[in-house]
Amino acid sequence: MNTLQAILSRRSVRAYTGQPVPDELLETVLRAAMAAPSAGNQQPWQFVVITERSLLDAIPAFHPYARMVLQAPVAVLLCGDLSLEKHKDYWVQDCSAAMQNMLLAIHASGLGGVWLGVYPNSERVDGFRKLLDLPEHIVPLGLLPFGYPSEQPPAVDRFNPSRIHTNHW
Amino acid sequence: MNTLQAILSRRSVRAYTGQPVPDELLETVLRAAMAAPSAGNQQPWQFVVITERSLLDAIPAFHPYARMVLQAPVAVLLCGDLSLEKHKDYWVQDCSAAMQNMLLAIHASGLGGVWLGVYPNSERVDGFRKLLDLPEHIVPLGLLPFGYPSEQPPAVDRFNPSRIHTNHW
Repeated sequence: MNTLQAILSRRSVRAYTGQPVPDELLETVLRAAMAAPSAGNQQPWQFVVITERSLLDAIPAFHPYARMVLQAPVAVLLCGDLSLEKHKDYWVQDCSAAMQNMLLAIHASGLGGVWLGVYPNSERVDGFRKLLDLPEHIVPLGLLPFGYPSEQPPAVDRFNPSRIHTNHW
Repeated sequence: MNTLQAILSRRSVRAYTGQPVPDELLETVLRAAMAAPSAGNQQPWQFVVITERSLLDAIPAFHPYARMVLQAPVAVLLCGDLSLEKHKDYWVQDCSAAMQNMLLAIHASGLGGVWLGVYPNSERVDGFRKLLDLPEHIVPLGLLPFGYPSEQPPAVDRFNPSRIHTNHW
């Protein structure tokens, strides 16, 4: 899929068929994530791939918008690794760029997924900490459940010229 | 350009020819930004397009890594608009996704650019505040100078399987 077309047509997909995601596509998605830019190329990310049904099913108990994980064959928990930070306080931006790359790679591969916010909501951060035994220096930023889509939300045009300013506010 | 190819071959470009960026390409880049996902679709972004030479030339005085703006025909300052936040403290993630979309749209269009960190560095935030007269609720997140590339950094493979964990830490 053409890059601009992928960017403009990507939507959050919250319903999936039962079909599993092949390992090579999962690797493509993670490869896309790690190609993101980061402050001083610090790459402060870690990824927990969740495929175990009992783990996926436990998530909605502490994340109110995560009911689609009950259907999803896989979800990637994208985490910041504070021990890898060379440029303090840029890990959220770096990891968010990696998340956006994953969303685009998923969409361009004929899959669908949705970015669920975790950090800085402490209930959700703690929920994942306990569920996956994350050490203190690992901070879950966002969860990305995905799979083969059973819904196809149409592209929307969010372009808003009133948000564009030129050479002054 | 194919989406995965764009994601995997994008590099930071810090040297540009003198050729100006056509208005329609600038609009494409901003359109890509605004197609990003955001928490509850809050779209908490504003964009200041900087083309005035005296403004561009003033930036390196308060941003130590911004010397390439002296050459760049244009730079977009991506800002968070705190008055648009419905989901508090997710604006940095939302705006970072928009920034990544811009970087990919730039690369896929044959242009080159680089994401310069601004927030949360207070000297850089204040520098842009004064330069562009930004109101209090507008927080500059990052600067994206871009143009036609006069360098072509080769793709690098950042894939690191040791960052991937499955079903537990």
